[in-house]
Amino acid sequence: MKILVLNGPNINFVGIREKGIYGTKDYAWLKNMLEEKAAREGHEIEVFHSNYEGGIIDRIQQAYGDGTEGIIINPGAFTHYSIAVRDALASVEIPKIEVHISNVHKREEFRHVSVTAPVCTGQIVGLGLEGYALAMDYLTSQEP
Amino acid sequence: MKILVLNGPNINFVGIREKGIYGTKDYAWLKNMLEEKAAREGHEIEVFHSNYEGGIIDRIQQAYGDGTEGIIINPGAFTHYSIAVRDALASVEIPKIEVHISNVHKREEFRHVSVTAPVCTGQIVGLGLEGYALAMDYLTSQEP
Amino acid sequence: MKILVLNGPNINFVGIREKGIYGTKDYAWLKNMLEEKAAREGHEIEVFHSNYEGGIIDRIQQAYGDGTEGIIINPGAFTHYSIAVRDALASVEIPKIEVHISNVHKREEFRHVSVTAPVCTGQIVGLGLEGYALAMDYLTSQEP
Amino acid sequence: MKILVLNGPNINFVGIREKGIYGTKDYAWLKNMLEEKAAREGHEIEVFHSNYEGGIIDRIQQAYGDGTEGIIINPGAFTHYSIAVRDALASVEIPKIEVHISNVHKREEFRHVSVTAPVCTGQIVGLGLEGYALAMDYLTSQEP
Amino acid sequence: MKILVLNGPNINFVGIREKGIYGTKDYAWLKNMLEEKAAREGHEIEVFHSNYEGGIIDRIQQAYGDGTEGIIINPGAFTHYSIAVRDALASVEIPKIEVHISNVHKREEFRHVSVTAPVCTGQIVGLGLEGYALAMDYLTSQEP
Amino acid sequence: MKILVLNGPNINFVGIREKGIYGTKDYAWLKNMLEEKAAREGHEIEVFHSNYEGGIIDRIQQAYGDGTEGIIINPGAFTHYSIAVRDALASVEIPKIEVHISNVHKREEFRHVSVTAPVCTGQIVGLGLEGYALAMDYLTSQEP
Amino acid sequence: MKILVLNGPNINFVGIREKGIYGTKDYAWLKNMLEEKAAREGHEIEVFHSNYEGGIIDRIQQAYGDGTEGIIINPGAFTHYSIAVRDALASVEIPKIEVHISNVHKREEFRHVSVTAPVCTGQIVGLGLEGYALAMDYLTSQEP
Amino acid sequence: MKILVLNGPNINFVGIREKGIYGTKDYAWLKNMLEEKAAREGHEIEVFHSNYEGGIIDRIQQAYGDGTEGIIINPGAFTHYSIAVRDALASVEIPKIEVHISNVHKREEFRHVSVTAPVCTGQIVGLGLEGYALAMDYLTSQEP
Amino acid sequence: MKILVLNGPNINFVGIREKGIYGTKDYAWLKNMLEEKAAREGHEIEVFHSNYEGGIIDRIQQAYGDGTEGIIINPGAFTHYSIAVRDALASVEIPKIEVHISNVHKREEFRHVSVTAPVCTGQIVGLGLEGYALAMDYLTSQEP
Amino acid sequence: MKILVLNGPNINFVGIREKGIYGTKDYAWLKNMLEEKAAREGHEIEVFHSNYEGGIIDRIQQAYGDGTEGIIINPGAFTHYSIAVRDALASVEIPKIEVHISNVHKREEFRHVSVTAPVCTGQIVGLGLEGYALAMDYLTSQEP
Amino acid sequence: MKILVLNGPNINFVGIREKGIYGTKDYAWLKNMLEEKAAREGHEIEVFHSNYEGGIIDRIQQAYGDGTEGIIINPGAFTHYSIAVRDALASVEIPKIEVHISNVHKREEFRHVSVTAPVCTGQIVGLGLEGYALAMDYLTSQEP
Amino acid sequence: MKILVLNGPNINFVGIREKGIYGTKDYAWLKNMLEEKAAREGHEIEVFHSNYEGGIIDRIQQAYGDGTEGIIINPGAFTHYSIAVRDALASVEIPKIEVHISNVHKREEFRHVSVTAPVCTGQIVGLGLEGYALAMDYLTSQEP
Repeated sequence: MKILVLNGPNINFVGIREKGIYGTKDYAWLKNMLEEKAAREGHEIEVFHSNYEGGIIDRIQQAYGDGTEGIIINPGAFTHYSIAVRDALASVEIPKIEVHISNVHKREEFRHVSVTAPVCTGQIVGLGLEGYALAMDYLTSQEP
Repeated sequence: MKILVLNGPNINFVGIREKGIYGTKDYAWLKNMLEEKAAREGHEIEVFHSNYEGGIIDRIQQAYGDGTEGIIINPGAFTHYSIAVRDALASVEIPKIEVHISNVHKREEFRHVSVTAPVCTGQIVGLGLEGYALAMDYLTSQEP
Repeated sequence: MKILVLNGPNINFVGIREKGIYGTKDYAWLKNMLEEKAAREGHEIEVFHSNYEGGIIDRIQQAYGDGTEGIIINPGAFTHYSIAVRDALASVEIPKIEVHISNVHKREEFRHVSVTAPVCTGQIVGLGLEGYALAMDYLTSQEP
Repeated sequence: MKILVLNGPNINFVGIREKGIYGTKDYAWLKNMLEEKAAREGHEIEVFHSNYEGGIIDRIQQAYGDGTEGIIINPGAFTHYSIAVRDALASVEIPKIEVHISNVHKREEFRHVSVTAPVCTGQIVGLGLEGYALAMDYLTSQEP
Repeated sequence: MKILVLNGPNINFVGIREKGIYGTKDYAWLKNMLEEKAAREGHEIEVFHSNYEGGIIDRIQQAYGDGTEGIIINPGAFTHYSIAVRDALASVEIPKIEVHISNVHKREEFRHVSVTAPVCTGQIVGLGLEGYALAMDYLTSQEP
Repeated sequence: MKILVLNGPNINFVGIREKGIYGTKDYAWLKNMLEEKAAREGHEIEVFHSNYEGGIIDRIQQAYGDGTEGIIINPGAFTHYSIAVRDALASVEIPKIEVHISNVHKREEFRHVSVTAPVCTGQIVGLGLEGYALAMDYLTSQEP
Repeated sequence: MKILVLNGPNINFVGIREKGIYGTKDYAWLKNMLEEKAAREGHEIEVFHSNYEGGIIDRIQQAYGDGTEGIIINPGAFTHYSIAVRDALASVEIPKIEVHISNVHKREEFRHVSVTAPVCTGQIVGLGLEGYALAMDYLTSQEP
Repeated sequence: MKILVLNGPNINFVGIREKGIYGTKDYAWLKNMLEEKAAREGHEIEVFHSNYEGGIIDRIQQAYGDGTEGIIINPGAFTHYSIAVRDALASVEIPKIEVHISNVHKREEFRHVSVTAPVCTGQIVGLGLEGYALAMDYLTSQEP
Repeated sequence: MKILVLNGPNINFVGIREKGIYGTKDYAWLKNMLEEKAAREGHEIEVFHSNYEGGIIDRIQQAYGDGTEGIIINPGAFTHYSIAVRDALASVEIPKIEVHISNVHKREEFRHVSVTAPVCTGQIVGLGLEGYALAMDYLTSQEP
Repeated sequence: MKILVLNGPNINFVGIREKGIYGTKDYAWLKNMLEEKAAREGHEIEVFHSNYEGGIIDRIQQAYGDGTEGIIINPGAFTHYSIAVRDALASVEIPKIEVHISNVHKREEFRHVSVTAPVCTGQIVGLGLEGYALAMDYLTSQEP
Repeated sequence: MKILVLNGPNINFVGIREKGIYGTKDYAWLKNMLEEKAAREGHEIEVFHSNYEGGIIDRIQQAYGDGTEGIIINPGAFTHYSIAVRDALASVEIPKIEVHISNVHKREEFRHVSVTAPVCTGQIVGLGLEGYALAMDYLTSQEP
Repeated sequence: MKILVLNGPNINFVGIREKGIYGTKDYAWLKNMLEEKAAREGHEIEVFHSNYEGGIIDRIQQAYGDGTEGIIINPGAFTHYSIAVRDALASVEIPKIEVHISNVHKREEFRHVSVTAPVCTGQIVGLGLEGYALAMDYLTSQEP
């Protein structure tokens, strides 16, 4: 299965800063863990990051037509206001899982709202970096 | 690991009605799937259901002191207003995962709010009955 | 026709207290009136009351499968917040009429909102205990 | 008993258009049904329609003083904003029943609010054209 | 000075109904009082009433061009929602005084808002029918 | 093509008053421009105005059945609150274009909301009287 | 008749500053005008000013018991938030007229709300300093 | 005097968990303290707990008719949404004091609202378990 | 123990006016009752009143440093908006009990909000003048 | 005339996906249609697209100084939240027409708000790709 | 340059209490620092404090006419609700800088709103007592 | 000291357009003024601008690790909605001052809210380009 992992703004700083919220494992660890897991389970994976809204949208549009079969997206702060990312996600029919490392419902009021979740298949929240692995398990278990 | 699975009001009707939203597998299937998985992986599990808010609270309080090490809860409609269930969850320090079978963010506005999520470890939404299995995977992988 | 009449919290105190709002006929009068009317018109009726949300839900779920052909429900205060009762009602396809004895629109703001009405066929409000009889007339006149 | 049936804007188009919402019986059928029922039961009835807010108010004011003993009103869209119709209704002490053909609580948010209901005796919602007949039954059964 | 007094819906029922709110002097008394006062003070006056929003707007538009030098308007319920009456008032540059017989601020929340007041010169509220006379005093005292 | 142009309250005062907002061309100019354009392009047109909500609704209902193939409507202030006009528009399946002479989004907050736009095909805002001509171009270019 | 005129914060600066809103007549002119009018008409008057909320309340409490028969109050900015002034006004049963020099409904949103108006007899808004004289006319015309 | 003390959901866990908020004295201590105090002062007392909304309502209804002369209620989380408990309290005319152990106004926004307080005599908040004793002092000092 | 009792605006009028809400015992009675109780129980007390927000704040600041060990405050209307009084209370670490004579939750919506309660130890509401005595009992029972 | 057509995020996917909303003509068709129309009518046109907010802003800033005489902008999702795009538009005085392909007023609530419309000349909504052509007609007809 | 520094309620307690928020330098330090700075730079300064809203307003009004050329104001809690202080500030045309010692945007929601900022030249927030010095630098650097 | 000055969208157009709001000094002037001041005072400075949200975030992340000791940021329109910029700022512990050239509190409602201010040290608003210099003075005066 061909899987695309999309990480929005500041996710690349995970494990470096605000460790109280995000833990101490860093972005390289995450990337490596997912690539190894994919290799081990026989899937193709790309882990992509951008601090640019347009960068995320471009990559989603590219997924339409390059054979991507599942998207795991952590939109970071875009979760709460980027209708543009929402529209991009809505425009591709590939299964999409939204992942948040921290439990957003324990944080500021404005983090309780997701404008992207309604156009995804589902959401995994607050289970740390393991959330990505569980999302991958879900996607790959859905293969026909 | 000793795991308690709590299902709130109307979850026992899954697979019987509103199949467009909840799918066609029924509550017996869910119970069986979780019990078999626990047996297979060497964990102890109890799958509990109540249509009564008080019933859910009583069972959570009982978990305090009976050795429960992880709670998977689908509070059903209580998710959106039962501060009493929230308070019960908050009073026990066991890891707690909130599960929703359907993607609540695609449904009515009032289903976008969870009063229980802020006192849980995390949340799995919209991944069908498989969400329970993923929650169990998360809990059991956290064992020391 | 097999009809189920469901009365939520405090409806059993009608005619005893707050007579200015609910009138002086009591719950026994209501039960008797409906049973006599059903007998006279050749219908089967059960008048059920519970102060428990779970009790109301259990009884609705039981109606699914016991041949009930019409539900008349006065959810009492549950009208305004019990999404659990709403979900239970939504899960059975039997025609359902919501009845309120007093005109809720003349009372506190929070009584103007019904979370259960959107999943019922219709609503009769403010016509006293006669509202139940009119609901029954409607249901029985819809028989094929 | 002398009864006035008032129909606000667009009610005259019932059964012609939007049959999915309002059914297929038309305004002539409604008028005829009510007139025949009144004749059969020995009551005097007038079925009045206007697309004009002022027309509805004029007719209500006329009812004050012409011996009208009961009003059945379907204010149509005026239900949701016409404080002028509300004030007119409030100024006459005749019993008033508000009727809606469709279940407004299943429709747009703005149709859930009634500015006229608080000054009526009660409300019958979502029971189709039969709602008018039930309102008439209620009014005539209240005769001293 | 040529003065136009405009009365919106239900003002013609003053003194007949809801005397607790509006007092016992009726519309004929008001009309007469104002006409006598105008005659006594040497002014020209017309006291106009309509239950129709369009009727009020037509009369305001007519005032543009017929030499009217001051408008006293009690928009009745239109005060609270008729942007159309507001726009009509805004389109004529004649001094305009809004009058309310009762103290709207003591009544329902929705009566505290006036959509017409921002386009009038000022407002007299709660001083009974004498409010009209005071408005007339104000207008005539402003004559060059 | 048979086209109906509907103008709501105060539109007949365009070019006379508030020229800063609406420009200096008057209603006669608008009517003439549209009639000449229709004649030149071989279409049938009627330009209708009413300050009465009921008048607008009556004319819309009449269009149902008189062969009207396109409606251009400037509801004036009714845009912001007349659910009755909305319902009338919704009840006829003819293509409908909503036109506003001024850019309502530059004006008061309450003018940013249109209750009629959701039941029209589209909307042209702020392009002056030319907006009517563009709406006509659109309608006539859609002819089969 | 014994009349008390109360002016809240910044009213003493009328005519000095912000002449575009309040006009050019100053506080001395207002005081003099009212005192002369009272003398001419045979009434007793005191014109009191304080920038202190407590000062206004003290003076109202003093009025209870010193024979004051009518209060004219321009609470200035206290109008919009001083529940303490409201409570003081509510505690004395003397007729009270609230006066605003400018038309508050043409100004900022927060000036449209009056917390004091509901406990006064009525309100005169936007008629300049003449509003005080009209209030006095009203009070003195109500004498038994 | 016959006093009923009602404790809602999770109050039975006081002193066991969340000691930072509720202190370290447990439910047995509370029960004992109140029973000893009653015995010492010559009053009859029952301390009742339920995690069930329906259980609380049943007990309130039973109080109507069993001679209860005063109710002390800590509705726990029901305080904030249980209109059903509110209605039950409203239906019995016995003096009722609402008690909260912690100062709810220092906690989450949703705990600042009490739907039950408006139907009680008064409220004691944030004074720990001593709040119950003070409520009892109040009730017993009101005896005729 | 040295106790300061602070009474905000209009509390000095208790028992004189609005007896339906506040009862018939007056301010002198309250002062006397508290002073006698303090004398009887061996405590030092000062009962202070001001209609001035600044007066209340000055007195609170004075308490910082004069040995005051407990504050009982009825902020009157300041409860609902005086952030300045809130800040003054927050700046002194002495235990503080907020008292309201009437049950504010039965009154206007704006009285349901307290900006001062979150910085007090607790609150006693609706228990009449006895509320002060209970607050004093609480404070003195907390002495080390 | 030199015209710039700006298309925001996801507009380049028109005609490829969500054809139920946007129709089946694709972005190349749109670009071609506008370029041919410009050529035919003797105007200079550039059709620009970016998924980046910064890309749109850069292009607007470039228009200031490159002789652009008219802007047609479909901001896509930026319409609803990009104050940065709004500010860029506001900073250039060139006539600007906002175009939306679909009728946003028929879609989700958040699409009813445009933060960019208040700084444009006008808006064309819901007329499909033809909306661009009408906007061009408007701009070119305004040439001196 | 003649500068007036105004400090509202509780600012005089800076450095004494809540040092976590306001730091440890006290009011005397602030006064001295500003006076020395003024002396050093050749400016005239007055540092004024009042816990009374009326006191602040009186002092602002006095500044009108005593040659004050710049105002630095820390309104304390009045920032968030005192429209009276706002009106006083608006009535004098002297440049005004609003200063807050702490970063109000990190604190309670109600501290994020300033009713006084819109009538000041600008605002310095969260830079401690140095904010006063920076405001003084700004004012004195603006001298002609 | 090493200082980074960040300017968000459209700040580069200062002094070119909307001079009524932003003054006539342009971006080159600002850049030059800050660089000269830094040189004169012996600090290292970089003045960076981007119209891209991602560009601002990238530059903030780069500051983490390049020895930057102070950040001055004018986020432009991002101030009001870019949670992504907020998160980037929150992730670096360098002192940060938010600067706005104009007084945002005098402008549109949506400009009164800053999502970035809560994660900065403080804010300087409305003091023109001099605000940057004052922010620099503050940062450099904090050096150990």
